[in-house]
Amino acid sequence: MRSFAEATALSELRAGVHTAALDSEWSIGKNPHGGYMMALLTKAALRTAQRSHPLAVSAHFLRSPDAGEVELHTERVKRGRLFSTAHARLVQNGKVCIEATVTAGEISDAAHQWEAAQQPPIKPIDECPDHRMPTDGGLLGHLNLRLDPHSTAFLRGETDDGEVRGWMELTDGTDFDPLTLIVAVDMLPPTVFGLGQSGWCPTVELTYQLRALPAPGPVAGYTRCDALSADGWFNEDAAVYDSRGRLVAQSRQLALSGTALKNR
Amino acid sequence: MRSFAEATALSELRAGVHTAALDSEWSIGKNPHGGYMMALLTKAALRTAQRSHPLAVSAHFLRSPDAGEVELHTERVKRGRLFSTAHARLVQNGKVCIEATVTAGEISDAAHQWEAAQQPPIKPIDECPDHRMPTDGGLLGHLNLRLDPHSTAFLRGETDDGEVRGWMELTDGTDFDPLTLIVAVDMLPPTVFGLGQSGWCPTVELTYQLRALPAPGPVAGYTRCDALSADGWFNEDAAVYDSRGRLVAQSRQLALSGTALKNR
Repeated sequence: MRSFAEATALSELRAGVHTAALDSEWSIGKNPHGGYMMALLTKAALRTAQRSHPLAVSAHFLRSPDAGEVELHTERVKRGRLFSTAHARLVQNGKVCIEATVTAGEISDAAHQWEAAQQPPIKPIDECPDHRMPTDGGLLGHLNLRLDPHSTAFLRGETDDGEVRGWMELTDGTDFDPLTLIVAVDMLPPTVFGLGQSGWCPTVELTYQLRALPAPGPVAGYTRCDALSADGWFNEDAAVYDSRGRLVAQSRQLALSGTALKNR
Repeated sequence: MRSFAEATALSELRAGVHTAALDSEWSIGKNPHGGYMMALLTKAALRTAQRSHPLAVSAHFLRSPDAGEVELHTERVKRGRLFSTAHARLVQNGKVCIEATVTAGEISDAAHQWEAAQQPPIKPIDECPDHRMPTDGGLLGHLNLRLDPHSTAFLRGETDDGEVRGWMELTDGTDFDPLTLIVAVDMLPPTVFGLGQSGWCPTVELTYQLRALPAPGPVAGYTRCDALSADGWFNEDAAVYDSRGRLVAQSRQLALSGTALKNR
């Protein structure tokens, strides 16, 4: 079992080009996990930008690479006082797999000036079942995912309201940080499973915002969908709260339903 | 008064490079409007991608250009069956002002399979005051913006709940399309004005999703903020509904409060 730090090790090949190995354990089935790859690419971009925190990362997923060696191509496009911006590409066998831009800077650890609402209701972690399977060699060995029973209608063959809630912990014993939160925003099951859709729902675009530095402990995740189009496109908005209940990360993704994909 | 089509005219200089002139009328004060510039850049990227609709456009705003000539640098990074992806930069005087990625394809005009909720309540357009000023030579000459009185507490020196609602129409007589909807998602006053913040709130990152093709007629816009950080960062989520009440566009942006910016 390789930790997140081990699975995101980088070697600088030359200026603006790092090599890394996509870890087969940080995968869903045979596909390296999108949030994991995005975190790896962001790590390289932060080095190039020479800033601490990824304030906003937008990633367009072009094709799914295999586990194994990739190159991370980064370019600092702007160096500013408040933030710097880097362009980043994950490349395998000469093909771009992820096209990303990272706006990076430094954020404070102070409480938010204002929040619209409290964290959505999620059952206490002890009342949320553990979804690890002993035989699973993939991502669920690295993240202890506990879903609120409210969100598991699809496991019972039922439908719900397009919202998913749960808790997450890293099994390597580390606490979440601005990079592992990128994994967290893309970790809950697709909201459209509760709407009767199924299969692998590829993320086409995902934008992550780091909103605060997370406190130690598990994080609570909440995702919702606004609309599923006739041709299978759906959005999925995620909010992640730390153990103090503070909003620490947000994301919105555009994805394609596995059911629609199968019918094309 | 130049129409949107005139204000987004493009000339191809060479493969992957278009020139255009940022129109001083499509501005807020002296700053060309972010959504207008993003729409212009997306127009160039769609040509390069050879696809019809911008499914997801993520734009990182690095610096604010002046009105006048710019170059639009585009590169098709992937050509696919379901979608193609292009990288795009808006450059002025050799400096990148906007770094964007456009995932493009074709979407159907059919009703959504599923929607989470109805359009948020917005007063009928006739009960929303007109905010055009006869002397305004900028953007409000091109978009007839009518704010729900619910959302204008800040105009009365009061505070509200970080939500803004209103109606929009293009004054050049055209209906909204996938490009002008990019202007629409960035058109309502900043939500943080209702929280007592003020001044120019620069957008740092904005991701737009086209969710459906809009029907003719005015569109209804709804924006909300989840959190304003201690150092002035806030998110702003927009949803735009067409005259049938269908969700046609969504966006989320990360922006910096003008009040925080002034104090740095």
